[in-house]
Amino acid sequence: MKNRKIAMLGGGFIGDFYISALHGQRRTDRVNVVYSRSEATARKAADRWNIPVWTTDMKKAVTDPNVDTVVVALPNFEHLPAVKLAAEAGKALLVTKPLGRNASEAKEMLDIVEKYDIFHGYLEDLVYTPKTLKAIASVKNGALGNVLWVRSRETHPGPHSDWFWNAELSGGGAIVDLGCHCIEIARSYIGKDIRPLEVVCWADTQVKPIEAEDHAIGLVKYANGAIAQFEVSWCFRGGMDLRDEVMGVEGTILLNHFLRTGIEIFTAVGESDYLAEKAETATGWLFPVGDEVNALGYDHMFTDMFDSMDSGNDPKETFYDGYVVNAIIDACYKSAKSKKWEPVKLDIWRGSEEEKHGPVLKDFDDRYYLIKEEKMPHGTVKLILKDKKTGKIIQKIK
Amino acid sequence: MKNRKIAMLGGGFIGDFYISALHGQRRTDRVNVVYSRSEATARKAADRWNIPVWTTDMKKAVTDPNVDTVVVALPNFEHLPAVKLAAEAGKALLVTKPLGRNASEAKEMLDIVEKYDIFHGYLEDLVYTPKTLKAIASVKNGALGNVLWVRSRETHPGPHSDWFWNAELSGGGAIVDLGCHCIEIARSYIGKDIRPLEVVCWADTQVKPIEAEDHAIGLVKYANGAIAQFEVSWCFRGGMDLRDEVMGVEGTILLNHFLRTGIEIFTAVGESDYLAEKAETATGWLFPVGDEVNALGYDHMFTDMFDSMDSGNDPKETFYDGYVVNAIIDACYKSAKSKKWEPVKLDIWRGSEEEKHGPVLKDFDDRYYLIKEEKMPHGTVKLILKDKKTGKIIQKIK
Amino acid sequence: MKNRKIAMLGGGFIGDFYISALHGQRRTDRVNVVYSRSEATARKAADRWNIPVWTTDMKKAVTDPNVDTVVVALPNFEHLPAVKLAAEAGKALLVTKPLGRNASEAKEMLDIVEKYDIFHGYLEDLVYTPKTLKAIASVKNGALGNVLWVRSRETHPGPHSDWFWNAELSGGGAIVDLGCHCIEIARSYIGKDIRPLEVVCWADTQVKPIEAEDHAIGLVKYANGAIAQFEVSWCFRGGMDLRDEVMGVEGTILLNHFLRTGIEIFTAVGESDYLAEKAETATGWLFPVGDEVNALGYDHMFTDMFDSMDSGNDPKETFYDGYVVNAIIDACYKSAKSKKWEPVKLDIWRGSEEEKHGPVLKDFDDRYYLIKEEKMPHGTVKLILKDKKTGKIIQKIK
Amino acid sequence: MKNRKIAMLGGGFIGDFYISALHGQRRTDRVNVVYSRSEATARKAADRWNIPVWTTDMKKAVTDPNVDTVVVALPNFEHLPAVKLAAEAGKALLVTKPLGRNASEAKEMLDIVEKYDIFHGYLEDLVYTPKTLKAIASVKNGALGNVLWVRSRETHPGPHSDWFWNAELSGGGAIVDLGCHCIEIARSYIGKDIRPLEVVCWADTQVKPIEAEDHAIGLVKYANGAIAQFEVSWCFRGGMDLRDEVMGVEGTILLNHFLRTGIEIFTAVGESDYLAEKAETATGWLFPVGDEVNALGYDHMFTDMFDSMDSGNDPKETFYDGYVVNAIIDACYKSAKSKKWEPVKLDIWRGSEEEKHGPVLKDFDDRYYLIKEEKMPHGTVKLILKDKKTGKIIQKIK
Repeated sequence: MKNRKIAMLGGGFIGDFYISALHGQRRTDRVNVVYSRSEATARKAADRWNIPVWTTDMKKAVTDPNVDTVVVALPNFEHLPAVKLAAEAGKALLVTKPLGRNASEAKEMLDIVEKYDIFHGYLEDLVYTPKTLKAIASVKNGALGNVLWVRSRETHPGPHSDWFWNAELSGGGAIVDLGCHCIEIARSYIGKDIRPLEVVCWADTQVKPIEAEDHAIGLVKYANGAIAQFEVSWCFRGGMDLRDEVMGVEGTILLNHFLRTGIEIFTAVGESDYLAEKAETATGWLFPVGDEVNALGYDHMFTDMFDSMDSGNDPKETFYDGYVVNAIIDACYKSAKSKKWEPVKLDIWRGSEEEKHGPVLKDFDDRYYLIKEEKMPHGTVKLILKDKKTGKIIQKIK
Repeated sequence: MKNRKIAMLGGGFIGDFYISALHGQRRTDRVNVVYSRSEATARKAADRWNIPVWTTDMKKAVTDPNVDTVVVALPNFEHLPAVKLAAEAGKALLVTKPLGRNASEAKEMLDIVEKYDIFHGYLEDLVYTPKTLKAIASVKNGALGNVLWVRSRETHPGPHSDWFWNAELSGGGAIVDLGCHCIEIARSYIGKDIRPLEVVCWADTQVKPIEAEDHAIGLVKYANGAIAQFEVSWCFRGGMDLRDEVMGVEGTILLNHFLRTGIEIFTAVGESDYLAEKAETATGWLFPVGDEVNALGYDHMFTDMFDSMDSGNDPKETFYDGYVVNAIIDACYKSAKSKKWEPVKLDIWRGSEEEKHGPVLKDFDDRYYLIKEEKMPHGTVKLILKDKKTGKIIQKIK
Repeated sequence: MKNRKIAMLGGGFIGDFYISALHGQRRTDRVNVVYSRSEATARKAADRWNIPVWTTDMKKAVTDPNVDTVVVALPNFEHLPAVKLAAEAGKALLVTKPLGRNASEAKEMLDIVEKYDIFHGYLEDLVYTPKTLKAIASVKNGALGNVLWVRSRETHPGPHSDWFWNAELSGGGAIVDLGCHCIEIARSYIGKDIRPLEVVCWADTQVKPIEAEDHAIGLVKYANGAIAQFEVSWCFRGGMDLRDEVMGVEGTILLNHFLRTGIEIFTAVGESDYLAEKAETATGWLFPVGDEVNALGYDHMFTDMFDSMDSGNDPKETFYDGYVVNAIIDACYKSAKSKKWEPVKLDIWRGSEEEKHGPVLKDFDDRYYLIKEEKMPHGTVKLILKDKKTGKIIQKIK
Repeated sequence: MKNRKIAMLGGGFIGDFYISALHGQRRTDRVNVVYSRSEATARKAADRWNIPVWTTDMKKAVTDPNVDTVVVALPNFEHLPAVKLAAEAGKALLVTKPLGRNASEAKEMLDIVEKYDIFHGYLEDLVYTPKTLKAIASVKNGALGNVLWVRSRETHPGPHSDWFWNAELSGGGAIVDLGCHCIEIARSYIGKDIRPLEVVCWADTQVKPIEAEDHAIGLVKYANGAIAQFEVSWCFRGGMDLRDEVMGVEGTILLNHFLRTGIEIFTAVGESDYLAEKAETATGWLFPVGDEVNALGYDHMFTDMFDSMDSGNDPKETFYDGYVVNAIIDACYKSAKSKKWEPVKLDIWRGSEEEKHGPVLKDFDDRYYLIKEEKMPHGTVKLILKDKKTGKIIQKIK
């Protein structure tokens, strides 16, 4: 295990969360430099986390000799310039989500890190929550059979900083902010090797006085017939709703990452402290998580990133994954306008080209396929069968 | 309260459930005649429920002088002929869901009952579950503000009888079987006065060896900007998944009708009895409901139907509602093929013609609109504001 | 089914709930007379529920010729006089919980109804909740094997009426008010035939400025070795907490009757209506039940009572059960003072006299009993075995 | 942060879990020596976790120059000898739960580490689960007001190794194995400064063919009137049931650490891997946790231990806490036999000597105390008040 020396670009909400993960739990890696556009923010972060160097000069941060890894925790519109600087300096690069404001920006970043041949990780934390890792492992172990459908939902009452609300700076609204999580979560269950073919998307501005969408729903169709569904919103009331569902031929998974995790507090008087991200109330029934940094995947994400660096392997999430996600988002925005299904344009596709589809037939006996078997209220067991030759469907009491 | 005298058309799974509701809990109404195409079924139902008359002659059933109300619990393709017979006989008519196999059939039934001027109810039980009634009341009381989004999900491992699996007899697959519930649930939250404008729908046959869809997802856009989302499947594993979610400007509702209702049983040895509709396992962790008939809405549905008859009012659900649902389903099938949004064709529209849309602005002060306020991890409170004149979005520490 | 003609004694909170059950859902039985000590209350109840006769004269109520059944929904100290009057009038008697303020009062009531040989039911509603009925049925079907332990918890922020808070009028505090439910719920799972032997009980007045206990915990030991645990309080914050747990040799049951039943509402603005019994908040996350009357067991309780009258059988809950419950409560109060286990004194015991106890041995093979088998983290399966001769306990990898 | 050099005594189930925590997530501390009585176990652990030295000689392990901290993960009867050896070697000592088989052993260990003046931590992991830390923080922030009651439940189908089942080697049965967790969890909520006064305990051997108890329930009364309740069993079916509940004057906390944490998997086919500690089934509905090591508190426990070493402070849990827990357990065993409340004997008490008790009075106005206020079904608000002078309790409509 090699102790990594990190420059953190960005000292705001997300940078702060990242540092709390990196410096927590007796971890060996250290943030040696923190950069922010604002001197006050940089100084405050350095003080809080005992970081030796702070700066408002990004180039100085990435070229610091006491830095081997650059973590980009900046607003979306600053990812590309930061990646350029750090890549030129030959530093390993970890970039927060979404990679770009669109696929073209993402591809440019991917090209840069591949040209400079440097380690690159895409900081898609929600793929790394302990629950998601466990669930993905179960799917890989075959517990669900083939995955048919994934629902990923991320909604809350809106982001923390002004730039999110400006579509030019961020690249869009709730889709680019939250949909990027949902899309990659679904890909991780369905299989990253499976090509996303086309999307249909509804997006609207229902509540907030902004140009971009504050609510959207999208469907992504994959080459193996699986369907991914994302639901994103900045209008949700009640906290931060992070839930995923996976349906397979042989099973089902339901995950709740934030609002119902086995900790329930009723308080008539409240408490003074910060309770949880996007919490809306301070009294009544409250549902915090135990350890936000862990529950949101930061611990396992950085572990995978640095362990992969040590071992010379790719992490679970690379810039290529960020690029695929941006390409799907681009298609979603197109569909929201065209009001029809739109193809996902991937100039670079590194997965399988295979397309397969359609039902899997289960033999009942020589004559019939089995469609279904169920125990009925008064004790009988009913079979629904399909004649292999005639195609006729019949029912039968077992 | 007038004791109603009922002819039950259909003695299968659904008819049996209906009779158990009608004859349960010391209710005053009675099934006096039961009809089934099959003599064995009719006879068995009569025996089980102590019904004086059984018959395989539908006309005999509906014209029986000891009958004032006909309940149609027949396969979809038999609704129209049954409605014709009963309407001609001048009997009150309660028809199971979906009303027709398509809007044209539904409209024909609506025309008939209106021509004969007889009481008609649409047996959409899931709008009548105690939880749904409570939740709709909360919405009407303003607890959520304007409704923005409704998700209704009904999935299970597939229906009980052969005819469901034959698209010609049933009118389709999972959409017509299950989507009809979801669509009407969403309408009930959004407001039945609000016109459904257009739909987009994905449908596929992923698992079962049939022609019709075994899995579908649809979005229905309403004239006030609200969006309804349905998820239906015959491929779900783990029981019967009936969940609804409602998002409003001021609140959220989450309902779970079947698999997580506060009763959890672990058994290493199982039990011999019928446990719950579509239960898949007999050992391990099981999640039955306490009283299926009540939980699925049958008690409150029949109470509303007969109380409405007594008082001379329309019930919550009439043939007109069934017709609207069929019209939305028709548009879904069209969209699943055309791969774009399709308008909902309603030759008869009895609600509001108004369309309104877009965000509601909240004043912060003279200069700004309030977009958002949130407590941050280190204790500060952050505001996101929009300048009323320039439109610029800024952030501010409170 | 015979239509019953009811006199309701008591028009307060519980009487109102009872009438709403009796007159709801098109039930055939009717309250013809309502009595209350207060004219205003009697009149209001009569108006609200369309009851032809109201009176402040209890004798008049029970002797009304249009009455065949008397329901006693009065404060505890009035049960005995009411039972005397109604028994003398020869009317069937249904009495709310607890039967008496103590076992001696309860026994007197039991003696009276048996002397007059009239139908008597004990209105222990929480044994009749749909979930409890389902769970008891599962236990009877063998899903849990022998029952080892039952926890029943009923806590809330305190009762509605002044007399509850006066130990002389009510017979005690939270134990007599709430423990009566818990004790009978546990008996129903363990088996009513099994004798309750002895109890240990902690009781204290932690919060409320009263003489009686506002919080208590008790253990009841049964002749078959099973243990019942009750937790009652008038100091609970967060609503009404009604939960039961059952542990058997082969399985487990968890029931939540009120605060987590699959309906979750977040509202930032609240609503004006009554939401649920003992609800403490009107905004934030709320957890009402769909249909309180049904969820609390009133529907199924009255159905059992009147169906039993019709069929000439005893209902599930009779005065004898009320007497046993009071005897257990008496022992609890004694133990709370003596600080040791106290025997349950039952002058009348109508169940089994058998006592049995101790572990059941499971053969592993000729040499060993099986204590336990478990899959370990790195894939091995470990057995814990006991030598039948030597008694030595060993472990073994399977 | 100083990198700690650890000798792990014990390479079985618990040692393995500890090492997986210590070597996980890029932590800086390292296990340099692993000891086990069994050469095979020691060798296997060394291989699996890349530990340079393994040995079956305990003295060699603790005196190894590459060791500054000794972690005792041995069976209960070996704690005392191990502590002696390590203390003589002057190494920091972290000992798994329970500290001793009884208070006398625990006190001996406490005396030793205090005599040698070495750092000592008590590895009570369940006080360190992320949820528990969050909940304790909320209690300390005043969200619940004064704590009145704590329930802590730990039940599962029985421990992994043979020695647990031998009362002489382990010190008892389920109480000493599991009750130690529950007792310390409750102390942590109530306040470690508050003296535990007396206990009452029921214990029985209901299922397993052993001498010691396989099921027990205990109540611990504290000097401030708070009551702690533990429920422990080796007979639970359905997995590992770890739940805590806290009731305060102003609020309530419910924690579920294991079986319902927001991850639900249904699988008809199962999977081959280890799913969760004490999981009983491999198909049907399963409820694993995402990251067991984190969910069970190991991460935060070791972080606190080593951070405290670094800063020269006591950790949250020391040998003194282990001693108090053992003293409470001793009283429980005594009470289980004597069948009455037994005092907790603490030769060393380092907390407050204060005893206080009884209800806190809330003014309503000059004349009355407020007992309760509640919204009733038909909209009125009812007050229960107590006259300050006469003590009479009245009700009033607001």
